[in-house]
Amino acid sequence: MAIPDSSRAAVVREFGAPIGIEEVPIPREIEPGAILTRIETCSICGTDVHLWQGSLATKVELPVILGHEMVGRIVAFGAGSQRDSFGNALRTGDRITWSHTSCGSCYFCTVAQEPTLCQYTRRYMYDSLERFPYLMGGFSEYGYVLPEAGRIRVPDDVSNELASLSSCALRSVMNAFDVLGAVGASDVVAIQGAGPLGLLATAVAKTLGARRVLTIGAPDERLAIASAFGADETISIEGRSAEERLEHVRSATNGRGADIVMEFTGHPQAFSEGLELIRRGGRYVVVGQLGSGTVTIKPSLIVSKQLRILGSLSGRAKAYWKALDFIAAHKSHIPFERMISNRYALDTVNTAMERMRNFAEIKPMIVIASH
Amino acid sequence: MAIPDSSRAAVVREFGAPIGIEEVPIPREIEPGAILTRIETCSICGTDVHLWQGSLATKVELPVILGHEMVGRIVAFGAGSQRDSFGNALRTGDRITWSHTSCGSCYFCTVAQEPTLCQYTRRYMYDSLERFPYLMGGFSEYGYVLPEAGRIRVPDDVSNELASLSSCALRSVMNAFDVLGAVGASDVVAIQGAGPLGLLATAVAKTLGARRVLTIGAPDERLAIASAFGADETISIEGRSAEERLEHVRSATNGRGADIVMEFTGHPQAFSEGLELIRRGGRYVVVGQLGSGTVTIKPSLIVSKQLRILGSLSGRAKAYWKALDFIAAHKSHIPFERMISNRYALDTVNTAMERMRNFAEIKPMIVIASH
Amino acid sequence: MAIPDSSRAAVVREFGAPIGIEEVPIPREIEPGAILTRIETCSICGTDVHLWQGSLATKVELPVILGHEMVGRIVAFGAGSQRDSFGNALRTGDRITWSHTSCGSCYFCTVAQEPTLCQYTRRYMYDSLERFPYLMGGFSEYGYVLPEAGRIRVPDDVSNELASLSSCALRSVMNAFDVLGAVGASDVVAIQGAGPLGLLATAVAKTLGARRVLTIGAPDERLAIASAFGADETISIEGRSAEERLEHVRSATNGRGADIVMEFTGHPQAFSEGLELIRRGGRYVVVGQLGSGTVTIKPSLIVSKQLRILGSLSGRAKAYWKALDFIAAHKSHIPFERMISNRYALDTVNTAMERMRNFAEIKPMIVIASH
Amino acid sequence: MAIPDSSRAAVVREFGAPIGIEEVPIPREIEPGAILTRIETCSICGTDVHLWQGSLATKVELPVILGHEMVGRIVAFGAGSQRDSFGNALRTGDRITWSHTSCGSCYFCTVAQEPTLCQYTRRYMYDSLERFPYLMGGFSEYGYVLPEAGRIRVPDDVSNELASLSSCALRSVMNAFDVLGAVGASDVVAIQGAGPLGLLATAVAKTLGARRVLTIGAPDERLAIASAFGADETISIEGRSAEERLEHVRSATNGRGADIVMEFTGHPQAFSEGLELIRRGGRYVVVGQLGSGTVTIKPSLIVSKQLRILGSLSGRAKAYWKALDFIAAHKSHIPFERMISNRYALDTVNTAMERMRNFAEIKPMIVIASH
Repeated sequence: MAIPDSSRAAVVREFGAPIGIEEVPIPREIEPGAILTRIETCSICGTDVHLWQGSLATKVELPVILGHEMVGRIVAFGAGSQRDSFGNALRTGDRITWSHTSCGSCYFCTVAQEPTLCQYTRRYMYDSLERFPYLMGGFSEYGYVLPEAGRIRVPDDVSNELASLSSCALRSVMNAFDVLGAVGASDVVAIQGAGPLGLLATAVAKTLGARRVLTIGAPDERLAIASAFGADETISIEGRSAEERLEHVRSATNGRGADIVMEFTGHPQAFSEGLELIRRGGRYVVVGQLGSGTVTIKPSLIVSKQLRILGSLSGRAKAYWKALDFIAAHKSHIPFERMISNRYALDTVNTAMERMRNFAEIKPMIVIASH
Repeated sequence: MAIPDSSRAAVVREFGAPIGIEEVPIPREIEPGAILTRIETCSICGTDVHLWQGSLATKVELPVILGHEMVGRIVAFGAGSQRDSFGNALRTGDRITWSHTSCGSCYFCTVAQEPTLCQYTRRYMYDSLERFPYLMGGFSEYGYVLPEAGRIRVPDDVSNELASLSSCALRSVMNAFDVLGAVGASDVVAIQGAGPLGLLATAVAKTLGARRVLTIGAPDERLAIASAFGADETISIEGRSAEERLEHVRSATNGRGADIVMEFTGHPQAFSEGLELIRRGGRYVVVGQLGSGTVTIKPSLIVSKQLRILGSLSGRAKAYWKALDFIAAHKSHIPFERMISNRYALDTVNTAMERMRNFAEIKPMIVIASH
Repeated sequence: MAIPDSSRAAVVREFGAPIGIEEVPIPREIEPGAILTRIETCSICGTDVHLWQGSLATKVELPVILGHEMVGRIVAFGAGSQRDSFGNALRTGDRITWSHTSCGSCYFCTVAQEPTLCQYTRRYMYDSLERFPYLMGGFSEYGYVLPEAGRIRVPDDVSNELASLSSCALRSVMNAFDVLGAVGASDVVAIQGAGPLGLLATAVAKTLGARRVLTIGAPDERLAIASAFGADETISIEGRSAEERLEHVRSATNGRGADIVMEFTGHPQAFSEGLELIRRGGRYVVVGQLGSGTVTIKPSLIVSKQLRILGSLSGRAKAYWKALDFIAAHKSHIPFERMISNRYALDTVNTAMERMRNFAEIKPMIVIASH
Repeated sequence: MAIPDSSRAAVVREFGAPIGIEEVPIPREIEPGAILTRIETCSICGTDVHLWQGSLATKVELPVILGHEMVGRIVAFGAGSQRDSFGNALRTGDRITWSHTSCGSCYFCTVAQEPTLCQYTRRYMYDSLERFPYLMGGFSEYGYVLPEAGRIRVPDDVSNELASLSSCALRSVMNAFDVLGAVGASDVVAIQGAGPLGLLATAVAKTLGARRVLTIGAPDERLAIASAFGADETISIEGRSAEERLEHVRSATNGRGADIVMEFTGHPQAFSEGLELIRRGGRYVVVGQLGSGTVTIKPSLIVSKQLRILGSLSGRAKAYWKALDFIAAHKSHIPFERMISNRYALDTVNTAMERMRNFAEIKPMIVIASH
């Protein structure tokens, strides 16, 4: 198959403005270690909305190609890149997902062993399309996998759609559970948020044997999915005050509060509420707080409850591997596909994004190519 | 020695009002497991000021006897209490320190193994003097050690003064280091606060081999003690903005921020500042936030830096043991006594407390009896 | 109900000799904190056989009452003991299980916070029946709960039989999982042993979400129970060499070996085999090695694989609580009762023990009283 | 400076036979990411002796260039390799140390995040000199740094000699402390072995604030260095039985045994002894067991003491960084140079190795070039 000169892609040139479909150049040369792919599917993430709207704490270098949860089929290799990050052989025509880079030779990669915090990381969707290799986003016909980007072969029995939601949403959730440590068989886990991450975390927490999983969010359709994913109880935030939610969690935990709270909402206020929901001595994993907002808290709660508050940023390469393995292991009995609320062509990305912004979607797909 | 009917003690009946010297009954009967002591010394803690001023987050049941860092000599035993919490034999005339109770049979004591969080804890200085056993505070001629209170024999070569500051201040610091986990030989530790806890934490961090210890506080006399205790650098908060302090810490850490930050100030604003001082992937131990104040933070820092924020409340019994052991091991080369800013008789407690409130004291002593 | 003067009990006076049924005095006085119970059921543990045969590494002070997995109904309280170790109220007629003591005031209890290692522990079945309180074993009509013994109320919907196997077997398993730390969703767990602990560990590992659980043991009837408890694969040790077992585990783990190995066999040789079954970087929890035997190992495996080998001794009080909670949570879908291979009257204890010694039983019950 | 065609190097062609000085080809081409160095110094490690004598558990592909603790000056770069593993810029003429490779894309590198266990690792001194890049050993005029080999710039104020002992001996020690976790201020640490690793571990344990460090080994000259490095007590193994050593350690630890034991001897028997020296609940880090020997142990000690036994293999890249940082921080007050027992020219390598084999050397240097 001949590789064209350019790729159609959904481009953000101005925060909050309509997204344009543009032709972005395809690199002529593929560096050693890099891969060129034909993107088939890219799911939409809440972060795409935040980036589009200009509300992220992290710097974005406009113009950018939107989208970062992409599955592509390998079209061409740079020299020496025919293994994925886990040692699996790669061949032209194989499907992969990929993600931000870590340089492997900075303080954070080598000493801290936290490649997610790499100081030279390049993140898909945050880099200008005007710089090589241009194709740094997922809503695009072609994608470029940087030499230092983690990449993983998608198992044949995992669909594009499940693979794309594994590439960021479930990867972030698996990282959060790594950061958390053990879930005990008697632990009650409260999940803040019924978006894609909250729902997937519900499934993981229950699979890991949590005594009870309480999922807090809205609307009811999402809470119904939470139940299908294993939530023992769901707590709607609609028409319920923070006090009522706290009361609900306490009554489900002998008055103590949840052993573990996990935040996936993105609302600063949720952090303050989480400090109340958790029991003394409990653990609080914070994942969704990526925006530039602030919140007022009582820091005495951290001391008087002797809390452990654990931030989890995106996911290390190993979290990818765990995400795809989790999907492969559990897709027969957890109806992950219920999260996939819609499918859109690349041309209708504005409709998709607008609906995502209005919480009318859970995990919609931009379907770019079918095999 | 005949035991009198009552003990002179410093009593708070109204928040913020002058402290009275009153006669408080001495229990006629000592329960099994309890001990009656003649208090010799009780040091003053910042929490005493906060309690007196009514600014603690924790409930206080007025009227109370002030003071909780006491060293007493054993006068009488209840049945079966002639061993301390660590198996050391106790005899009449031995000196001990003691502290809040943990019941040993609640969820927090037994399942969570966090006796500090015991749901039935009784804390010295917080309990009304109108309830048995009355003598629940340290600025008093006599003290009553509850059956479930941790107690430890003071080694003969440790003075009352060093023992009293070990009983709460250093115990809280040792607990904070337990909560923190390993200090690595390359770790830069930033200590927020140059009060007694911050100074002692400076000494402990340096003893544990931290690469550099930076102590942030005021006034200069305290920072001089921090230097004597091992601080590699001190950063005065006087006449320096938060930005300048941040710049100082960054320039001392290759621009990354401190590997470990430990908070001992009690000011809510310090928590917000700590989130800036710490490097990505760093650990933040929060100890001083006991008041009812609030602070506005950027929760995205927790995620984008993938922080671990660890609350540490007071100290478990083992932290006592570690505190006295630390004093015994290091008193010959760390000038702990430089923290002891003054000695007061019980009758002059108002002067002492007033000066403590105005930061004119570091760790003053109420000397009640001499041997 | 009048309390008789003595209790019929199964007594070991000489290692390996027939067990006698004797009358053992019931204490006239119940100390503060102690409880007298009417024992209803006591299950048999492999350790009972080892004690009887004199092959334990731990000292046994003959003559002793055999049995230590007992459930009894409260007949009388000493002063002040009407709460279990978790704060639940206790009343006459309630059922409890109980276990060895920890003093709460020695180095191991207080500093190490490892009450299982208490240096003054008194263990049921190891203490002579000639010393107060005589009733230190489970195959007895009456039992005496020492003041410092952990005790837990049995929930009404948990049978005597499931409660008795929770009291030691499942408690030890829950402790082992505490010692292990997190089971990851991609972890393959190999269980050495298909006795009661191995079977229960199979159930727990699967409940905690292990990717695959491989249970290694014999005979086939036990392996069938392992499958019913969630084992993905069972590996019979009958007619299969250690090399074949190793090959089996490797082929189930991409050639790497198991991520986690847990030993519950009691055979020293199993420890050596476990070092081979585990992958590089894996964790090995050792539970069953209580005998006085030795084994020859290659210590280079510990280094070249960078293993973590974690001993787990019996179970802390919290492991009790977790055990009963696990039973309560999962008894509707895990057929725990399949482990209960037989029921015996106290008089037939020799038959029961003989069959246990010959591996003809899994978890038989001595039924002493019915309600 | 013109690069010659070959490098003189010390070659093992037959285990136990005399080491030859041979001409080994210098690669004509330096791969992207690789570096060619002029080796200045390479210290001798006990493993060199074991390899030479053929007693290692790990496979060795003869013929090999001996030596793996090398410091070299950069002569030429492959493309794109001008940063070390920690982000420091590298220039021709800079000094570096380097070590085994990790591929960065296998299960052990990416999922387990244990690059030391990389399944595709290439280790200096173990690879045949007949395969590209030939220069896979340290006793050689030139050295080749593979693209995937960790490398670190030596700070200007650290001598070749201290850098070379950091590159393996101290790196392995820093890794062992990472594996260990926190050293508490009250912990007594027993070090098994007074070779280079044992001595360096003595220095690190004391720097990290251990309450007491007991170093066990021989002969007296080494124990004198242990004392100079901070050992509170040294225990000679000469003329003292294992029972006497155990008694010594117990008497120094209130009868409990050491809180932490660290093994650096290489003698299988030491592992068995370590299980006795350690207290219940203690931690045992095993480092020196690299040989093919066996030892008979009582596995019940692991359970009855509830031990944590932690293997530590070589050192991750971060352990390099920590090693050089430790040297830089402490060389002014720890006399590391006392370990350097001799300096040899490349031609006298057989003398050096023979003396090393006879324990007549501690850490001798092969000095190959001087600047």
